Amino acid sequence: MTASFRMPAEWFEHESCLMAWPTRPDLWGDVLDTVKGEYANVARAIAEFEPVTMVAPPGWGADARERCGDDVTVVELPLDDSWFRDSAPLFVLDGSGRRAGVDFRFNAWGGKHAPFDADDRISGLLLEHLAIERVHSDLILEGGAITVDGEGTLITTEQCLLHPNRNPGMQREGIEAELKARLGVTKVIWLPYGGLLDTETDGHVDGVCAFAGPGKVVVSLPDDPAHPDYARMRANRAVLEVTSDAQGRPLEIVDIPQTAFSDIAGGEVEVSYLNYYIANGGVVVPVAGVPQDEAALEVIATAYPGRKVVGVKAPAIAYGGGGVHCITQQIPAARPTA
Amino acid sequence: MTASFRMPAEWFEHESCLMAWPTRPDLWGDVLDTVKGEYANVARAIAEFEPVTMVAPPGWGADARERCGDDVTVVELPLDDSWFRDSAPLFVLDGSGRRAGVDFRFNAWGGKHAPFDADDRISGLLLEHLAIERVHSDLILEGGAITVDGEGTLITTEQCLLHPNRNPGMQREGIEAELKARLGVTKVIWLPYGGLLDTETDGHVDGVCAFAGPGKVVVSLPDDPAHPDYARMRANRAVLEVTSDAQGRPLEIVDIPQTAFSDIAGGEVEVSYLNYYIANGGVVVPVAGVPQDEAALEVIATAYPGRKVVGVKAPAIAYGGGGVHCITQQIPAARPTA
Repeated sequence: MTASFRMPAEWFEHESCLMAWPTRPDLWGDVLDTVKGEYANVARAIAEFEPVTMVAPPGWGADARERCGDDVTVVELPLDDSWFRDSAPLFVLDGSGRRAGVDFRFNAWGGKHAPFDADDRISGLLLEHLAIERVHSDLILEGGAITVDGEGTLITTEQCLLHPNRNPGMQREGIEAELKARLGVTKVIWLPYGGLLDTETDGHVDGVCAFAGPGKVVVSLPDDPAHPDYARMRANRAVLEVTSDAQGRPLEIVDIPQTAFSDIAGGEVEVSYLNYYIANGGVVVPVAGVPQDEAALEVIATAYPGRKVVGVKAPAIAYGGGGVHCITQQIPAARPTA
Repeated sequence: MTASFRMPAEWFEHESCLMAWPTRPDLWGDVLDTVKGEYANVARAIAEFEPVTMVAPPGWGADARERCGDDVTVVELPLDDSWFRDSAPLFVLDGSGRRAGVDFRFNAWGGKHAPFDADDRISGLLLEHLAIERVHSDLILEGGAITVDGEGTLITTEQCLLHPNRNPGMQREGIEAELKARLGVTKVIWLPYGGLLDTETDGHVDGVCAFAGPGKVVVSLPDDPAHPDYARMRANRAVLEVTSDAQGRPLEIVDIPQTAFSDIAGGEVEVSYLNYYIANGGVVVPVAGVPQDEAALEVIATAYPGRKVVGVKAPAIAYGGGGVHCITQQIPAARPTA
């Protein structure tokens, strides 16, 4: 019966947004306090558009409540880490509006952190909490590794999804088959690259490319030849330029030429403008607090006409390996997709 | 002392060409007789330009001699297989014209065939036979996985050289460092892709891209949108378009839009026009015996002005997983490179 389910695009109406509260001292170190402020700011920004539920590990609910304010609902559930794009379910809908959550396996991005058993179990707990049907998959998949148009097309990166630390026993064909079966897509577009500096996720697509609408994608295309992804993002774009989507449409491509680096904790991190969250009527974008932020926000506003585009400073989230998209997961409204 | 050695470009003057005689029944099956004819034709074609030594396994020398004729020298040495681009040494020169052969480790393209111990040892035996100094490397590397300009630049594919079946304990940086140390290059250009159908080598660069001169490359750019590499080769080209070589030069790119498929042994193989051998004064190109051969040969002639371009039918060699380049290895003349 799962074959009739389909993952809606991120711009499909949301019932709410799920987030997870950051607490891991080994990941955040000295920036833990800063990153809590950034998570709270993201939650508050999204709450302007749709309800937000912040999941905190047992004992941390009060901390999250205090930081996030009354507009954010806080619940306590066991967690290892705080990246719901990757550890939460991917919600799917059938033609009648019935919902399910696909519970893919999670191994902390190829075993980069331990423990990860609570995060591997969190999708099941969330679905129980939400009283939404659970669909299991044996595929190891993080939600940040894919972007869908809700009309049959999924984009991913080979750098991540073919990495031997994810599904070493599977070939490209088997991975495609499982994505098609669980997410209701009919065409998988493989980009060669995520970000070279995105070593934490091995190059998730949500740092470099996002669907902005049917037949329309936004891509990172650094205009600085010294950027480590200068050639790589052009390789991605070359693939998108000649690839049609599941409906046979060529893809309109919107480029984000701006890139932003930020100093934090004695080092430098890249804040990916692509790692934004599409909320009901809005787009919440991670920014670095640098002059080029404004131009990047303008590009995104052009790509998402009719939505309010909001920047939230997120260098500490970038220090942890992600952005606004990485720390959020939309629950679509229980409405028919078509 | 090895740091002063540098691998010359394939167009640097050759002393001779090494080849290995095909005999493996499990690889060739019913096409063994046909492929012997093709190897002999390649040897005869190259012998028009430079001396050719054909190495045959013990007991097969007479067979090779009979097929190849008097213009080809035949010697017997233990062999498993017949792809000297990949199992023979990569010859290097220092500024004074002193030669050495780098003996990289060989594991039959990630363990795809067994046994491969004789082919792993053949570089040492060849260097002993030739009385040329041997330089050892612990890197698993086939010569078909790289192309060099002799002026500091090496091009390879991530699909092959980062494949976990080659050097699983090494990262990109370690592989680059060893290539630089052993082959005297200062810049490594990573293309994302070899041929998708080139499963035998996991996408060697010598099926999709070759240096044609300083600052000049020839690339495969299939003009048929249905070709499995249509988007992939455009991704490669996008990287080359924005990458400079070791001397800081942008790359002039010559496209080969033609592709050729040939029926053989009940199946279909692709004959890669890119898999040619640059001989002294000539270029020997594998062709399929199809109409588009002529146009591809014309493109290659344009890319290598002053050289005689010769096509040799090679569908059986393609059936075994390669082309003219795969079955040859140049020994450069003992002359200073600069």
